[in-house]
Amino acid sequence: MKTLDLVLPDTRYPIHIGQQLLGKVELITSHLKQPRVAIVTNTTVAALYLEPLLRSLEQAGIDCLPVILPDGEDFKTWDTLNQIFDALLSHRCERGTTLIALGGGVIGDMTGFAAACYQRGVPFIQIPTTLLAQVDSSVGGKTAINHPQGKNMIGAFYQPQAVIADMDLLDTLPERELSAGLAEIIKYGLLGDEQFLGWLEQNMSALRKRDKQALAYAVEHSCKMKADIVAQDEKEQGMRALLNLGHTFGHAIEAGLGFGTWLHGEAVGAGMQLAAEASRQLGWLDQAQVARVEAVLKQAGLPTVAPALGTARWIELMGHDKKVEGGEIRFVLLKSLGHAVVAKLPAAILEQTLNSRFVGNIA
Amino acid sequence: MKTLDLVLPDTRYPIHIGQQLLGKVELITSHLKQPRVAIVTNTTVAALYLEPLLRSLEQAGIDCLPVILPDGEDFKTWDTLNQIFDALLSHRCERGTTLIALGGGVIGDMTGFAAACYQRGVPFIQIPTTLLAQVDSSVGGKTAINHPQGKNMIGAFYQPQAVIADMDLLDTLPERELSAGLAEIIKYGLLGDEQFLGWLEQNMSALRKRDKQALAYAVEHSCKMKADIVAQDEKEQGMRALLNLGHTFGHAIEAGLGFGTWLHGEAVGAGMQLAAEASRQLGWLDQAQVARVEAVLKQAGLPTVAPALGTARWIELMGHDKKVEGGEIRFVLLKSLGHAVVAKLPAAILEQTLNSRFVGNIA
Ligand SMILES: NC(=O)c1ccc[n+]([C@@H]2O[C@H](COP(=O)([O-])OP(=O)(O)OC[C@H]3O[C@@H](n4cnc5c(N)ncnc54)[C@H](O)[C@@H]3O)[C@@H](O)[C@H]2O)c1
Ligand SMILES: NC(=O)c1ccc[n+]([C@@H]2O[C@H](COP(=O)([O-])OP(=O)(O)OC[C@H]3O[C@@H](n4cnc5c(N)ncnc54)[C@H](O)[C@@H]3O)[C@@H](O)[C@H]2O)c1
Ligand SMILES: [Zn+2]
Ligand SMILES: [Zn+2]
Repeated sequence: MKTLDLVLPDTRYPIHIGQQLLGKVELITSHLKQPRVAIVTNTTVAALYLEPLLRSLEQAGIDCLPVILPDGEDFKTWDTLNQIFDALLSHRCERGTTLIALGGGVIGDMTGFAAACYQRGVPFIQIPTTLLAQVDSSVGGKTAINHPQGKNMIGAFYQPQAVIADMDLLDTLPERELSAGLAEIIKYGLLGDEQFLGWLEQNMSALRKRDKQALAYAVEHSCKMKADIVAQDEKEQGMRALLNLGHTFGHAIEAGLGFGTWLHGEAVGAGMQLAAEASRQLGWLDQAQVARVEAVLKQAGLPTVAPALGTARWIELMGHDKKVEGGEIRFVLLKSLGHAVVAKLPAAILEQTLNSRFVGNIA
Repeated sequence: MKTLDLVLPDTRYPIHIGQQLLGKVELITSHLKQPRVAIVTNTTVAALYLEPLLRSLEQAGIDCLPVILPDGEDFKTWDTLNQIFDALLSHRCERGTTLIALGGGVIGDMTGFAAACYQRGVPFIQIPTTLLAQVDSSVGGKTAINHPQGKNMIGAFYQPQAVIADMDLLDTLPERELSAGLAEIIKYGLLGDEQFLGWLEQNMSALRKRDKQALAYAVEHSCKMKADIVAQDEKEQGMRALLNLGHTFGHAIEAGLGFGTWLHGEAVGAGMQLAAEASRQLGWLDQAQVARVEAVLKQAGLPTVAPALGTARWIELMGHDKKVEGGEIRFVLLKSLGHAVVAKLPAAILEQTLNSRFVGNIA
């Protein structure tokens, strides 16, 4: 097991990465204020991992309240959040009760937001069960639910007490979800570490075969990069925005097709390809570098051609993104492979990018 | 105008107290990130004060989005909160939009919580229009909505950019609401400043006649005391609990009669009387001091006899309070007038208190 430390102005917490961590109950119990937890999970993950976690916590004398939510992004809503509050209140959970998020990013985001709001804040621990959640959503304290008018529009910055990333849990993850997680891992290479990008190119097939050592290294390196960025900019006022590489295009894809059609990571994959292409048109990358992005995304099983939404619709969808500031669209672009910056993209280049070979033709 | 500074580890903000402040638009504009605000208020307050505020902001070139909610504690719910989110999203408000709470504690608590959650946090400014909100709810950053299973159960600690307390707004406040605000003011005297208690005894009739100088002094002194306490304990881990003097009994009254039957301040008034009586039974106060509490509450137009709920029901209602820790009921009690402490009350003394002359007989 490796342990990273995320150090913030007000708090710090460990990110544990390894195997067989679900049984290491002291990783949890050492953070509890009272011997009482609520384990928030969904039907899919509960069927796989709730029992072993319950067993080891109960053996350690911890009173556990399981809260099992329906599975899916469609349920990342106030109504589902309220199921958590109902359960906590029905069982008279107090401010010392710790919430444990056992699941992917949806469960992690909702549980974190519930923890932020329940009685104005109770502690919580992240046990991410998807690769995406292990390298991205569980680290850094962004929590949220969706609003009918926008994804992740209602939320909080609220940090967990600990993150426990167990590679063994990835054995059961569907192939597509694994690839979606790889998109965020590739993102770290592209935005800030060309050497890591090289490592990924070398080790992609091991990762896709779920080699535990390779996965643990990729998760550790990704978390370290994210932790470094978050430590410098917890509330997303500056450089944390770099983590949105591929995401402005990606969100447009998700929203344009209807959320859930493409996985978030798939949309981010195609979005990073578009960011690379836009960067080439600005003269920052060359053809070979764009091709290198394309190749590593394909190796990871990710799409590199975004769906045809029509230029006007693309721009409308991107304009409705949280990252709009004073009405201008700002993008995360690549000065070079391994060096992302935030920049405004001239409308002409944006349109050319949306008419490049990385966007499908409308039939 | 007097200005106090609330200094916290992460932030600081001014509390302006005076007259004719609604026209001093620079108190607001100096805090704006973008020339855009959403003014959240309710139907009652909007009819009285929205126009003048709108006018002065619009003259200063600020784009204003009024969000007018229904009036009352019954509407301090997720559904009403969502009306704020709907309005903000429909108008594509961004992270730089400042929310302004124009109203009493209900509007302040909801607007603050909306600001805490909208896109994970936007700035907000409090313009409290009730005496209670001026001396209590607008200062200190506690925000919340109610849950069917408990009041203020869902919320956040989230500090405003500024508080603007204009005495002129109190002219239209109903008598009962004025008295309810006085309860919280008396609370400051009882919990930490016997001299201020003396001042209140001397000036109560001026306060009830809404003498602006007297009101401004009382608000300023109360805010100063609250600011000092909050500065030492923002997240309510220790001494901030002293601000709950009278509140454990008070919440039981509110919940037992059904919220809204008694005003919060009225319940706190009778609750402080019970806290004083319990303190006497512990040997901390004498009869004369209990009578002094009774007299000042009566001067303020507040009840000193709590409704008969039945001892078992009282205890049940108090057990369901947020301040329960590890199953024991802790009370804020008076070591002397002007010196509150948190203590566990022996069950026998609690029962005697609930059978004292400060609780009505069940008919
Ligand atoms: N907070 C952040 O910083 C942040 C960052 C990125 C993404 N997100 C959010 O994360 C969410 C996406 O997360 P996700 O990709 O993990 O999706 P997810 O949580 O929906 O999980 C994907 C699917 O895999 C299933 N699953 C989870 N673990 C499994 C396992 N071990 N074995 C088998 N199946 C398993 C889930 O039940 C679900 O059906 C989005 O809502 C997104 O907004 C948040
Ligand atoms: N956040 C905190 O620290 C804190 C502290 C104490 C109370 N609170 C909360 O505050 C709320 C109670 O606040 P409140 O007592 O201000 O009640 P309120 O907000 O309901 O206001 C009382 C009534 O007065 C009306 N009103 C407001 N200003 C007026 C004016 N200037 N002229 C005429 N009418 C006016 C309102 O419309 C309402 O009908 C409760 O929800 C309580 O939980 C919060
Ligand atoms: Zn992402
Ligand atoms: Zn109060």
